[in-house]
Amino acid sequence: MSQRFGAGIWHFATYVDRYATDGYGDPRSVIDAIDLAGQVNDLSVVDLNYPFFGGEFTNDQIKEALDRNKLSVIGITPEMYTREFAKGAFTNPDPGVRRRAHELITEACDVVRYFGAEYVKLWPGQDGWDYPFQVDHHALWQNSMDGVGRLASENPDLRFVIEYKPREPRVHMSYSSVARTLLAIEKIGLPNVGILLDFGHALYGGESPADSAALAIDYGRLFGMDVNDNFRSWDDDLVAGTVHPIELFEFFHVLHKNGWEGVWQLDQFPFREDSVAAANHAVDFLKTVSRALDVLDEDALAEAQANHDAVTALRIAQKALFGSW
Amino acid sequence: MSQRFGAGIWHFATYVDRYATDGYGDPRSVIDAIDLAGQVNDLSVVDLNYPFFGGEFTNDQIKEALDRNKLSVIGITPEMYTREFAKGAFTNPDPGVRRRAHELITEACDVVRYFGAEYVKLWPGQDGWDYPFQVDHHALWQNSMDGVGRLASENPDLRFVIEYKPREPRVHMSYSSVARTLLAIEKIGLPNVGILLDFGHALYGGESPADSAALAIDYGRLFGMDVNDNFRSWDDDLVAGTVHPIELFEFFHVLHKNGWEGVWQLDQFPFREDSVAAANHAVDFLKTVSRALDVLDEDALAEAQANHDAVTALRIAQKALFGSW
Amino acid sequence: MSQRFGAGIWHFATYVDRYATDGYGDPRSVIDAIDLAGQVNDLSVVDLNYPFFGGEFTNDQIKEALDRNKLSVIGITPEMYTREFAKGAFTNPDPGVRRRAHELITEACDVVRYFGAEYVKLWPGQDGWDYPFQVDHHALWQNSMDGVGRLASENPDLRFVIEYKPREPRVHMSYSSVARTLLAIEKIGLPNVGILLDFGHALYGGESPADSAALAIDYGRLFGMDVNDNFRSWDDDLVAGTVHPIELFEFFHVLHKNGWEGVWQLDQFPFREDSVAAANHAVDFLKTVSRALDVLDEDALAEAQANHDAVTALRIAQKALFGSW
Amino acid sequence: MSQRFGAGIWHFATYVDRYATDGYGDPRSVIDAIDLAGQVNDLSVVDLNYPFFGGEFTNDQIKEALDRNKLSVIGITPEMYTREFAKGAFTNPDPGVRRRAHELITEACDVVRYFGAEYVKLWPGQDGWDYPFQVDHHALWQNSMDGVGRLASENPDLRFVIEYKPREPRVHMSYSSVARTLLAIEKIGLPNVGILLDFGHALYGGESPADSAALAIDYGRLFGMDVNDNFRSWDDDLVAGTVHPIELFEFFHVLHKNGWEGVWQLDQFPFREDSVAAANHAVDFLKTVSRALDVLDEDALAEAQANHDAVTALRIAQKALFGSW
Repeated sequence: MSQRFGAGIWHFATYVDRYATDGYGDPRSVIDAIDLAGQVNDLSVVDLNYPFFGGEFTNDQIKEALDRNKLSVIGITPEMYTREFAKGAFTNPDPGVRRRAHELITEACDVVRYFGAEYVKLWPGQDGWDYPFQVDHHALWQNSMDGVGRLASENPDLRFVIEYKPREPRVHMSYSSVARTLLAIEKIGLPNVGILLDFGHALYGGESPADSAALAIDYGRLFGMDVNDNFRSWDDDLVAGTVHPIELFEFFHVLHKNGWEGVWQLDQFPFREDSVAAANHAVDFLKTVSRALDVLDEDALAEAQANHDAVTALRIAQKALFGSW
Repeated sequence: MSQRFGAGIWHFATYVDRYATDGYGDPRSVIDAIDLAGQVNDLSVVDLNYPFFGGEFTNDQIKEALDRNKLSVIGITPEMYTREFAKGAFTNPDPGVRRRAHELITEACDVVRYFGAEYVKLWPGQDGWDYPFQVDHHALWQNSMDGVGRLASENPDLRFVIEYKPREPRVHMSYSSVARTLLAIEKIGLPNVGILLDFGHALYGGESPADSAALAIDYGRLFGMDVNDNFRSWDDDLVAGTVHPIELFEFFHVLHKNGWEGVWQLDQFPFREDSVAAANHAVDFLKTVSRALDVLDEDALAEAQANHDAVTALRIAQKALFGSW
Repeated sequence: MSQRFGAGIWHFATYVDRYATDGYGDPRSVIDAIDLAGQVNDLSVVDLNYPFFGGEFTNDQIKEALDRNKLSVIGITPEMYTREFAKGAFTNPDPGVRRRAHELITEACDVVRYFGAEYVKLWPGQDGWDYPFQVDHHALWQNSMDGVGRLASENPDLRFVIEYKPREPRVHMSYSSVARTLLAIEKIGLPNVGILLDFGHALYGGESPADSAALAIDYGRLFGMDVNDNFRSWDDDLVAGTVHPIELFEFFHVLHKNGWEGVWQLDQFPFREDSVAAANHAVDFLKTVSRALDVLDEDALAEAQANHDAVTALRIAQKALFGSW
Repeated sequence: MSQRFGAGIWHFATYVDRYATDGYGDPRSVIDAIDLAGQVNDLSVVDLNYPFFGGEFTNDQIKEALDRNKLSVIGITPEMYTREFAKGAFTNPDPGVRRRAHELITEACDVVRYFGAEYVKLWPGQDGWDYPFQVDHHALWQNSMDGVGRLASENPDLRFVIEYKPREPRVHMSYSSVARTLLAIEKIGLPNVGILLDFGHALYGGESPADSAALAIDYGRLFGMDVNDNFRSWDDDLVAGTVHPIELFEFFHVLHKNGWEGVWQLDQFPFREDSVAAANHAVDFLKTVSRALDVLDEDALAEAQANHDAVTALRIAQKALFGSW
């Protein structure tokens, strides 16, 4: 079976930030975004925000738009990071808000069931802190774990993936790294909680994404992944492969070597670019990676790695990826 | 004369970002913001965005709100970073957009004149690039300088201040550092262009803000300043003094030693905090700094600095700032 | 009992780096260093490198020097990061070198027993990688854990502490963060393995050191700590409290609140400073912190933290620390 | 004429750091290093440290070693960053040390003349500061400029190049960025002072190296360059092209477009690698870059850049560099 590609549907939305408050383009509904996603070569799945953005839409209406674009749903991302949750969803100081977060995500569970998606994606971007002395770290972390654990135990038929990130919008996010997230998952102790590993978040957090993937796989918790690129100091969500192609190749090599066969997804924010062109360019690079994995001299690479011989290992890898060497 | 304090009026607005697209609070008009600014202890000036946000207001209406809050205007910040300018104001690839940026800022000049403010503040946050190979760096930089130079030569009665920052919203901003901005100002060669030095931007750019201030003063170009705090890796715009009090004190020491007598301004974004409380807390710290400057043993410090004796210099400075030592 | 203070004995050595290969001062033996440590006010314990540097010394000779300076030993740091271990100690590709690392640390165990110290300190600074594709991450991490586990199981009478750090001298260190280290400790599953939390390493790794301490305490694994300061982007090992006093106070507050009663140690590298003056300045700050903990309004702080009210919490904390507010 | 390649001779030395104080290999003399450099494919020039390391050697002895390896000298790097200069060379608080730095560099001038080299390379790695409040920034910067200016005016027959870097070994270096260095050069006002642009230093300083090159060329001050790679947060001096191949290509594209025809040099520190293999791997990548420049569609790229069209520009560039697209 050939490699499947996917994208977060927000790839095809427009964006605001604290400066361009009038947005980087005209608002689009989720339906508009799906129709753009359908124009990308070889995209087969999307991750949908819930509630659906840009209007009131039924699941059936969304399904119809997906069908006409030959797309299916891999995951649902409940919007647990909007105004109501500005001081946290799982960790909000107000128990009423924590409850509302639980309800919102529980609704999202039904959307996952409707679409036959693989997982509920938890991205607790507002759960954390900004200042020294602001929070009781022990209590905050306990709430971070309790919120996930309760959802996972109430919905044993579904998978929950946590997408960690060092920061933004909070100055420090609770689920900040692969290791921190695995610690939580081990403590929660349920089989249906895993990691959605975002290449850019790992890179930005000072991790080697290939190492992060290896660790999550060691624990049997790599439930999903997505890619993009950045300059290591912020979650720029640039087009995959345009800045760090070699580390992206190493990341996919770890997945490949471990027989990980999930979807290769995009999590890009083309603020100023044509979103279809940005997605096509990334998918073209991913196809190059896929071909490179086929021609990589695995035995020679394994021997070089056994010796920690960086120059030899890189020569093998660069030759496979770039061809022209 | 006692020290005057000021704030960017956006300190009292609410914010959006790419996740909390519904905003971190109900929208406020500039009038609402001015009324909040009036509640801060000892605030006497504000910097106003132009166009005025949250409605259609005449200069007279704004003036009335300022008067009832005993506030005057230090500068006007034209919004040259909104949707129209997403690919740059001075450096936009479209000459029509560059012209529109020029017109907008020219309008802002008249607002400066109306309010008798000290300067037009140029913050070209969208002028720069995101990707390798995206731009011709020579041409981009030339446009960055030409845009400022034209304004300054057309309006010799006004001062223009450039507020540099390493990045955000662009991944790389053209006016990225104190030295880069001084290079441009020297090339432009006009007396009415200077720097608005944001403490947090310097910190975040890996500069020592005290050194940045000293350099701008050496060139006679320190026309304004504002303060806040961050964790050195992003422009967090946190409350001044809450993370890096010693470097903030060193920054003010350089201003004081050089007889720089301008307003001490706040550029904070209290996303999740009460904006009046956040301003009051910062002003209280600034007053502590002001008192510390009065008691600092300048001779002993100068001697320690002449020897590059860090431990002695810090003992003197920390004692003055923190008292309890 | 009053607070005890300590220091790594290397604080009183001289240093080389890749540029000043002739060193930042005349070489000193460990005996010289102990005699300098004895001049610091209120220092009662030291951590000793093993083998002892600067000559051939017996345990008895070291003990005599310690006794005349009224110092005792808190830990022994085997030098598992010198030339022989340049490509790793626990993770070296050569099994013979891994064995030699084991032997060296086993010798250090006997030195711990001789001095009645609290722990063997493991700082695997060469265990990691430099380049993409250089290593098999799964295998490397397994070796990282196996090396520690074997020592801990062979020496059940002793405690082993792992001092994590993001990098240096390796570009990426295996034991890179508090969460990663706790994952390993949980997997190793022995009661005598814990964390030595270096404030600067946590800061430099983008952690909030107070949060790191809280997490290690949650797992019952905070076996030791040391402090210093830096600019968040490298392990500068500057004098504690000179750059980030508020976060240092928060770190100690978490220890205090949890009844953690160990030694407050210094891990500073005064390359260009008088080492006794640098230690005294740091200890003076730590005493300020200790007094601040006594006057901190814990109830009011707990209430502010329960509300995630940063401004109120900081006002309480800054007032306690700085007095002059 | 085909592209000439060069290397700092330290590429072929061994190193120490503050942990592996016994060095990452047996010491080598400069003669040993030259003989290793001679084994690299297509290396034609070297930059030599002065004094020559690893023994007492005459210029004639060095020349003989160079001749037998078919190497010539591009520049001389006086060691103004060793113990004597630990608190600065140009900026040392002791005028006697400043004088000694001047004398050392003046001696190096004669070595440049002897070898017919292109420049004296100034790398003032100890000139700067470590702590807040440690120095008078104005005075320090003035000394930084005076030291260079005096040398340049006393030796009008020679060129002096300043190699800037953000930090290391000082926590902050005075010559920290391309713009700061150009400011100094403009102030010094002599024709024989320029920049040696190290790709890795620019990258690590948050610059886009291509933009840095363009700026230095605009001022007519790009007198030399060298390359390597790193992870953006430290001067790792890794093998060129192994981490950031696309930005390296962009850097060379700017040189090429501007008709800059100097030597492409390596500044790598292969701590744990075979130094000949590390150099060969880098040179192979540079040859790939050279071929890519030949096939790059310059017109199409220029058009994409005129529109700031990142996706199109990158597609053109990546295709030229990687072939397999």
